[in-house]
Amino acid sequence: MTAHRYTEDHTIPFYEGDVTNRITMAMLINVLMLCSDHQNAALGVAQQSLIDQYGVGWVVTQYAITIKRLPVADDTVKVSTRGTSYNRFFAYREFWIHDEQGNELVKVDSIWVLMDEKARKITEIPESIIKPYRSENVRRVPRLKRPERLDSNAELTTKKYQVRASDIDFNGHVNNAHYLEWMTDVLPLDFLVSHQPEQINIRFENEVKYGNFVSSSVLVESQDNDRIKTIHEIMSNDKLSSSATFIWKKNDVKGNE
Amino acid sequence: MTAHRYTEDHTIPFYEGDVTNRITMAMLINVLMLCSDHQNAALGVAQQSLIDQYGVGWVVTQYAITIKRLPVADDTVKVSTRGTSYNRFFAYREFWIHDEQGNELVKVDSIWVLMDEKARKITEIPESIIKPYRSENVRRVPRLKRPERLDSNAELTTKKYQVRASDIDFNGHVNNAHYLEWMTDVLPLDFLVSHQPEQINIRFENEVKYGNFVSSSVLVESQDNDRIKTIHEIMSNDKLSSSATFIWKKNDVKGNE
Repeated sequence: MTAHRYTEDHTIPFYEGDVTNRITMAMLINVLMLCSDHQNAALGVAQQSLIDQYGVGWVVTQYAITIKRLPVADDTVKVSTRGTSYNRFFAYREFWIHDEQGNELVKVDSIWVLMDEKARKITEIPESIIKPYRSENVRRVPRLKRPERLDSNAELTTKKYQVRASDIDFNGHVNNAHYLEWMTDVLPLDFLVSHQPEQINIRFENEVKYGNFVSSSVLVESQDNDRIKTIHEIMSNDKLSSSATFIWKKNDVKGNE
Repeated sequence: MTAHRYTEDHTIPFYEGDVTNRITMAMLINVLMLCSDHQNAALGVAQQSLIDQYGVGWVVTQYAITIKRLPVADDTVKVSTRGTSYNRFFAYREFWIHDEQGNELVKVDSIWVLMDEKARKITEIPESIIKPYRSENVRRVPRLKRPERLDSNAELTTKKYQVRASDIDFNGHVNNAHYLEWMTDVLPLDFLVSHQPEQINIRFENEVKYGNFVSSSVLVESQDNDRIKTIHEIMSNDKLSSSATFIWKKNDVKGNE
């Protein structure tokens, strides 16, 4: 029995693109979340119904994102997802973005936990919630590569942000996509125009709340293979909220790879 | 001859909604801009082709927004626009948002000018650019109500924001929708949850640039008719970037009017 795969089309409006017209990392995450939300609803286990019935909600702890080519504004892409496997506490979900010709543009692996909304603690995944996905019950879900941590002696670039009302989703939490926005914004605009991410490993640790200040720090490192590595940390109240490692490649022309 | 009317469907993804699930003011503006962009393209006068052929681009100077009910995430709405009338320097464009039952939810009047991209100066509207819209050539376009200005002696709430890389659109300008985000974010979250705008008059004056700091100030005033009036100013480098007056009504229940 293979896991249930869900696919939908998405046309990228201009406001999901950046200055080069490519979809932003924040919007990429949003588009994936939209697809998994729709699968959840199609399988009768919508996020809101889990909260209402069980007092629990899915929370992503880690993404590994591999990008061959970023779609641009006006592109229509196919977004697919499947809840591939799970064990007692963790669920492994895959995502794909394909262009209209069927070429794979983006592949994402993600690890999810079920969070008790009141206690804000991880809970066991009940059979009734996971069953509709036809996920494989496994002893270990795949372990995604951990982002590197910053050396406190390194020369970092840091910017401060305050969590905005518009960063809060209908569950009262900060939408994960905003971490990507804080991480990329700390890089100079000319770098963002001339490069695009090829690989992103990001982990979410402690939740930030409305009104909190976060500091987004980055260390930029050149690689042997003509790539740039950036190591990111989002800190809030002296606690690590999120860490990430990005590998960037240079664009040939603005708006193209 | 009536002006050419263009209509398209838009389904609101969760990430265009706020904590109450209603579409944010920033996303409302984006969705309208998307519709007018699509009309421009359909009529063979896409924004990019104006820049390429004439070195000019349309810029909105003012919106008057009347909201009966804000659509929420997962709603599919009909967005319509028409370039109603114009004179030598100004164009008047109308927008509507209707629900699937045909009820009008939002009406927007807007005034546009054609900007020389290099000189950043208003230019005359050439016949070749305006003709496809079948707009009425008038002596005066409608005058929209000006937002009120803040009294410098008033007790204001002010927040500072820095223009982010992701605030810049593919033309290198700050997308107007972000002004709405700075204006609403300065209000407390509990106010934003318990109220929704009924009327917004907003004017755009001086452009802000990437990296600039802007300060968003607001004065909150109770009205006789159980409404709240908020008067907003966005300042950057001691110049007025945008001003707005909002009239808010109280929501009965979270997520509903």
